[in-house]
Amino acid sequence: MKTMGLSELVLVRPKIFPSDEATARASGANDILERATVADNLPDAIADCGFVVGASARLRGLQWPVVDPRRCAELVWQQIPQNRVALVMGPEASGLTNEDLARCQQLVHIPTQPEYGSLNLAMAVQVLCYELRMAVDAGRVQSEEVREAPLATAAELEGFHAHLERVLRDAQFLHPDHPRQLKLKLRRLFHRARLDQNEINILRGALAALDPSKTSRGNDEP
Amino acid sequence: MKTMGLSELVLVRPKIFPSDEATARASGANDILERATVADNLPDAIADCGFVVGASARLRGLQWPVVDPRRCAELVWQQIPQNRVALVMGPEASGLTNEDLARCQQLVHIPTQPEYGSLNLAMAVQVLCYELRMAVDAGRVQSEEVREAPLATAAELEGFHAHLERVLRDAQFLHPDHPRQLKLKLRRLFHRARLDQNEINILRGALAALDPSKTSRGNDEP
Repeated sequence: MKTMGLSELVLVRPKIFPSDEATARASGANDILERATVADNLPDAIADCGFVVGASARLRGLQWPVVDPRRCAELVWQQIPQNRVALVMGPEASGLTNEDLARCQQLVHIPTQPEYGSLNLAMAVQVLCYELRMAVDAGRVQSEEVREAPLATAAELEGFHAHLERVLRDAQFLHPDHPRQLKLKLRRLFHRARLDQNEINILRGALAALDPSKTSRGNDEP
Repeated sequence: MKTMGLSELVLVRPKIFPSDEATARASGANDILERATVADNLPDAIADCGFVVGASARLRGLQWPVVDPRRCAELVWQQIPQNRVALVMGPEASGLTNEDLARCQQLVHIPTQPEYGSLNLAMAVQVLCYELRMAVDAGRVQSEEVREAPLATAAELEGFHAHLERVLRDAQFLHPDHPRQLKLKLRRLFHRARLDQNEINILRGALAALDPSKTSRGNDEP
């Protein structure tokens, strides 16, 4: 919950609370356990909520509206500005009862393999909270890699390819009779890399060092 | 893993394996543990994989391409038809090392609260597997550029980088005193290009032709 930005926990008739084991496991998230409240029953727990979503593993025969976690997150965020929203999860072993589910306006089901479909409670909470978090960011975490330099301009790329081709011709790797396809393949490969200006400089430095026709050939020559 | 439809697990130097505790906890998913294989190191574990994604909690200062789990799932499904794909997760306490991450073509980061951002390993696995499952259902997998050959495997990429580094060292372009950053930049650039096997062959052919230490140096030498 806390890693995904949720902070409010209500426990319905917990067997043990506070629990030393729970506190020990909640490394760094004790504040959520400390602020957790306890309710005698589900209706009390969700009494002030305008939108109540129940998590259900069972789908067969259920005739309630069911969405997947992604759509659930959208629906929750639509309600958040005006309503308190509850996400109701059942106990580990049994899940929510039909009576519990009937108190929810919306059910959410996490898609799983049909033949092995039961998630742990903790896993189900993680997935639902993750989708809530993703819906806030809406993919904004996505970064292209951070570049130290602007992308190479078309002219700089041309300069690099001319240099590369000249050096590979001098090294007799590119042959005048069938150079075109190979040159195109090299171009495509480096286009895919979307070279920046530093990288062009690195590659051109490497080409200069490898150039077989350079006058100061290196230490291995007389 | 199993609830989300994944079945192949490779463990790198597990402390205990097989483990009674792990088997007991894997209720109903023992088959995955039974079929799990053990590798001595990460390069061995990913050797036959064409697309290697590493999970990273740390973003600061990292300049590798990073995507969120949703985009990661799209990228994985794009590669699946032609390539073996590895999703690499670090150990619980420490995560992947920088050296591990440098072997991944792509990093994935699960968005979290900035002030409390560290997910348990199990939770991170759940989120990434969940997104892979959701992406199957969504069925909206974009197609990448058509390749003439499968992507280079991790072992082939290592072979290329070793060749490149050796040749550049012989050409005195890579210096022993500050080689690391430059080597990483070269890796990153070629990771971004997602080299296929034809391209690896082209580049290694070019390196062989440019190798300053080759005996048959070329026409311009006596």
